[in-house]
Amino acid sequence: MTLDRVNPAIDPQHVAPKDLTMTRKSTSSIHQARRGMRPVAPSVSRLTPIGLTEVTLAGTGFWGSRVKVNADATIQHCASWLERAGWLGNFDAAAAGALPGLRQGREFADSEVYKLFEAMAWQHGATGDDRYEELAAEFTRRVSAAQDADGYLNTNFGRPGQQPRYSDLEWGHELYNFGHLLQAAVARARTSGEDDFVRLARRVADHICDTFGDDGIRSVCGHPEVELGLIEFGRLTGERRYLEQARIFLERRGHGVLADIEWGRSYYQDDVPVRDAKVLRGHAVRALYLAAAAVDIAVEFGDTDLLEAVEAQYARTIATRTYLTGGMGSHHQDEAFGEDFVLPSDRAYCESCAGIASVMLAWRLLLATGNPQYGDIVERTLYNIVAAAPAEDGRSFFYANTLHQRIPGDDVVLGTQSKRAASSTRASWFDVSCCPNNIARTFASLTGYLATVDEGGLQLHQYAAATIDTELGDGRRFGVSVHTDYPNSGLVTLQVHTAPQTPVAVTLRVPAWAIAATLTVGGVTSSAPVGSVVVERVFEVGDELVLTLPMTPRFTWPDERIDAVRGSVAVEWGPRVLSLESVDLPAGSHVDDFVVDTTVPPRIDGVGVVVSGTVVEPHRPGWPFRSNPQPARGRQLAASVPLVPYHSWGNRGPGTMRVWLRTV
Amino acid sequence: MTLDRVNPAIDPQHVAPKDLTMTRKSTSSIHQARRGMRPVAPSVSRLTPIGLTEVTLAGTGFWGSRVKVNADATIQHCASWLERAGWLGNFDAAAAGALPGLRQGREFADSEVYKLFEAMAWQHGATGDDRYEELAAEFTRRVSAAQDADGYLNTNFGRPGQQPRYSDLEWGHELYNFGHLLQAAVARARTSGEDDFVRLARRVADHICDTFGDDGIRSVCGHPEVELGLIEFGRLTGERRYLEQARIFLERRGHGVLADIEWGRSYYQDDVPVRDAKVLRGHAVRALYLAAAAVDIAVEFGDTDLLEAVEAQYARTIATRTYLTGGMGSHHQDEAFGEDFVLPSDRAYCESCAGIASVMLAWRLLLATGNPQYGDIVERTLYNIVAAAPAEDGRSFFYANTLHQRIPGDDVVLGTQSKRAASSTRASWFDVSCCPNNIARTFASLTGYLATVDEGGLQLHQYAAATIDTELGDGRRFGVSVHTDYPNSGLVTLQVHTAPQTPVAVTLRVPAWAIAATLTVGGVTSSAPVGSVVVERVFEVGDELVLTLPMTPRFTWPDERIDAVRGSVAVEWGPRVLSLESVDLPAGSHVDDFVVDTTVPPRIDGVGVVVSGTVVEPHRPGWPFRSNPQPARGRQLAASVPLVPYHSWGNRGPGTMRVWLRTV
Repeated sequence: MTLDRVNPAIDPQHVAPKDLTMTRKSTSSIHQARRGMRPVAPSVSRLTPIGLTEVTLAGTGFWGSRVKVNADATIQHCASWLERAGWLGNFDAAAAGALPGLRQGREFADSEVYKLFEAMAWQHGATGDDRYEELAAEFTRRVSAAQDADGYLNTNFGRPGQQPRYSDLEWGHELYNFGHLLQAAVARARTSGEDDFVRLARRVADHICDTFGDDGIRSVCGHPEVELGLIEFGRLTGERRYLEQARIFLERRGHGVLADIEWGRSYYQDDVPVRDAKVLRGHAVRALYLAAAAVDIAVEFGDTDLLEAVEAQYARTIATRTYLTGGMGSHHQDEAFGEDFVLPSDRAYCESCAGIASVMLAWRLLLATGNPQYGDIVERTLYNIVAAAPAEDGRSFFYANTLHQRIPGDDVVLGTQSKRAASSTRASWFDVSCCPNNIARTFASLTGYLATVDEGGLQLHQYAAATIDTELGDGRRFGVSVHTDYPNSGLVTLQVHTAPQTPVAVTLRVPAWAIAATLTVGGVTSSAPVGSVVVERVFEVGDELVLTLPMTPRFTWPDERIDAVRGSVAVEWGPRVLSLESVDLPAGSHVDDFVVDTTVPPRIDGVGVVVSGTVVEPHRPGWPFRSNPQPARGRQLAASVPLVPYHSWGNRGPGTMRVWLRTV
Repeated sequence: MTLDRVNPAIDPQHVAPKDLTMTRKSTSSIHQARRGMRPVAPSVSRLTPIGLTEVTLAGTGFWGSRVKVNADATIQHCASWLERAGWLGNFDAAAAGALPGLRQGREFADSEVYKLFEAMAWQHGATGDDRYEELAAEFTRRVSAAQDADGYLNTNFGRPGQQPRYSDLEWGHELYNFGHLLQAAVARARTSGEDDFVRLARRVADHICDTFGDDGIRSVCGHPEVELGLIEFGRLTGERRYLEQARIFLERRGHGVLADIEWGRSYYQDDVPVRDAKVLRGHAVRALYLAAAAVDIAVEFGDTDLLEAVEAQYARTIATRTYLTGGMGSHHQDEAFGEDFVLPSDRAYCESCAGIASVMLAWRLLLATGNPQYGDIVERTLYNIVAAAPAEDGRSFFYANTLHQRIPGDDVVLGTQSKRAASSTRASWFDVSCCPNNIARTFASLTGYLATVDEGGLQLHQYAAATIDTELGDGRRFGVSVHTDYPNSGLVTLQVHTAPQTPVAVTLRVPAWAIAATLTVGGVTSSAPVGSVVVERVFEVGDELVLTLPMTPRFTWPDERIDAVRGSVAVEWGPRVLSLESVDLPAGSHVDDFVVDTTVPPRIDGVGVVVSGTVVEPHRPGWPFRSNPQPARGRQLAASVPLVPYHSWGNRGPGTMRVWLRTV
């Protein structure tokens, strides 16, 4: 494919930078201003994301309420846990010379502080919410105090009694931590301008380039992430050197520069160069962060081969290694992708962070290519992984997102730090607590995923009640209000409130499941085929576009090669995957004993979806393999049972759950 | 249940002990002599195992040839790897004061030396094979040189620069290593009498009791095993103290004496006391060794509650957590049992050592209860796990025994040490190389699993060409020759060659799959119902018993609650599970594309089994979940395909394989 040079400039900040040097010319100062408040700001893309302040999400509705819970509860929850777990204290201990004795947490504990700092920055920038500004300043002071004179900053390496710097690139996570630090600095710079944190980050970025350039250590970090940070910090500052360093890391990887380990070098994608790989593999978060960085690098360097390679890898990953929920990662052992079609429900790993990383990758591909199918992936993953991870109160989380809970389980005690990544109920915090802070920064910047612009118009990718007031790629102002109760309803009404006198193209994504969707404009209804529908006209203030997405619940069958769910169906309802919870079955029944009747379509009953079927009392043989095809069965009880959206399972106490319902 | 006090004596050695103190009275000196050459010699049991020298296995046939390969190749292979990997050298380094600098291998490397020593001892004792006697003497010298004055012996702990003794009971494996040392000493004492190794072991056993008694460290080892060693060493020496210490360890466990870990205390069975548990759980080898020790302790202390508890746990484990192959352990992550019915084929762990441990447990339960179903489990596991692990030449091994190989894989290089427990082909050695030595000691003592006696007669549990010459529980001599080509044929002929003038009961196990088996005695054929068939009469020399087990290959269906194989069937042939390998499909076809036709029974064609079905070219959708029940399919090709016994899969180079064949 050819990359359209829509926005060839390195990205500046939304607010006026105080003293960041812009080394590359930009083509439009207006673009620069508007493009500032965005987590991802490619210099080149087919679609241009709009800034967080250009979208105002209603405080109610599916996403609006979750973004509010994130702001009101999750960020503060994470901050108090960072303190309680001692991961913030590590920086104080470093400054006080009390390391390694007082150090707490794993190698990547530093990064959690940076991720939450990033969340606080977006939260402030997107809404003007000042509640966390003091905390951000405190984070900055405490982190800064631990930085070495040459820019290096890590609480786990380099001091007497600690391992030397970069002596364990496989597992040390030093560059990984830097990646999150740089992303946090981007958020800070784009929302508040240059300050001590941003300057600290620049010293880190320079240190990385000094240390890992062509004349430096010729290796990479065991966990990709620094590439994403370097690219975005390069876009922010215009420093070509940072982009180059990201590309160096990308090209080095895959040639066996890291040690072989029990799970093979595929674990950290050091088995095959990124541009030669055929599919994502190994540790899911690592693979997805790396692929996202590869897209960034491809667009910054005009490397269409690389972009096509990542597109093909992701396409096969979606076709063969992705759960119905959009979740990725089949293995608990190495938190990794399985081989093609290895998608067990009951040991699905589907790490929350992998879901976030998949959204990051899909979003970058959507920007680069304009292909609305990436919007479908973003939607599926947001509704069924990102929304599923946190509890309704935003203070406990799933780390892994199983599709089948076989035992109720009661090993999580709220208010304590869970040792386990997988639990039957959500936990307040984890020994490895990457997911809560990742959730926090994602929700804090979620409005950035709703819409894009190009020269001709506006593209709406996700549907939520919101007001959008933006500038098209050619500088014209355009604004719409989106009224919808999606996904409870499939009715999405756009009302134009700002429009130029010239034609504007409004593009609406039509999800792949939305067969027979319609669009009504000016009283005329026409079909809206799957993919996207475009209305190009001279809009007047008050004009309405009504998109109607059919919200009939539906059965979904799996590919026959997915052994784990053969003979089962799932039920989907709009963008949401549904699940059966034991609390909704007759007392004493197990979700595994429910056999669904697929001759009766799922239907809406009251506010939810119901399916028909039979609760089968199983025969209990001594040996579970038998010589006759038909099982001996006990009592059978016909039943209509309600299903709940997968994202809200586990909110009624310990129980069993399954997404894929037995048909036999 | 009530334990019959058939053999109330502590077990002595087969050869005259030089100076082992017998502290308990025995009821029969003849029993003592005969009972010596047995790996497991309960003081109390319903059935009494017979000594290794009382069974002479033919050098051909299924087991005879494998035992020969073990003797000729595997033992030497393991010995050279123990040297090459430096695990034997650790003892030299210890004696030379060169630890920790020169230490090689994991915490449990010492135990591998002991396991192979045990194999050499049984090999010598069972057959008089002198080839490894010199090596055994060398092992003894090198190990002895590393023992501390107080009996402690471990190359990984206690020296300057190493962790202190018993400072990491969760993962240190110190007591685990001792357990294998004690089992090795039992083998040595029962086959060669007391010598330096046996005396060394006595110092170890005393050290354990001194250190971990009621007044000592009130904890247990993270890996059960020392209990098995202490019990058998106690049976050997008559030292009640060793039995008591085993019981102390057993009763301590399950009360949270070890640290909580990522996978929970169930990993090392420290979550629930053994006598309260409902099912085996956690790390499979740990769970099975512990359960086997619990049976030993139950019979030695007349603890029927404990025996019943283990029987119930194992019964549920067999019914809900066991693969068709007899394999146990569903998780790669923690090498652990899954929850009930979590039995994925493609990520089946089924560690070879877990198979061996399950045989050890089933054998002990068979001895204690006489229930022939335990003989079925022993048979299933021997044919489909223990025989599957080693290659035909006995020089490479599966560590994990998957039931579904999805990709050919080529990551194993013969002659090198594999980092991975799971490979698509067998490996010469592993970083964690517990399985090869465990295989070696199991095959070296395999003849011990064929038959037992009680006062009234002989029980034949496994069928192999062999000569048995033994003494019944009441002292009468009895001998039979077993002629059979089992499992290629279901015909088993017993010919009596030694018989008393009084009635003898010969009991033959009839496997659960052998519907319509018959027994012919004196020209009269009668049905032999599943379970066991008994012929009690005054036998004359030359009398023949002919057991005919129907060997028609058969389809086997799984319990509907095993999601992983729903809509699939397996094919079994006598005691053997069969498998489909890609090398037997039309070129370019994948085993996952073969749909078997269950209306055509599997049939014997030539020397193997063939099934009918269709090779289906799958539709390749972009998203593997669809809204219509019927998949789009490409070309379909009817085919008859041969299946191979699972134990011999992977012997024709890298390929794909599955045990459970798709029916839809």
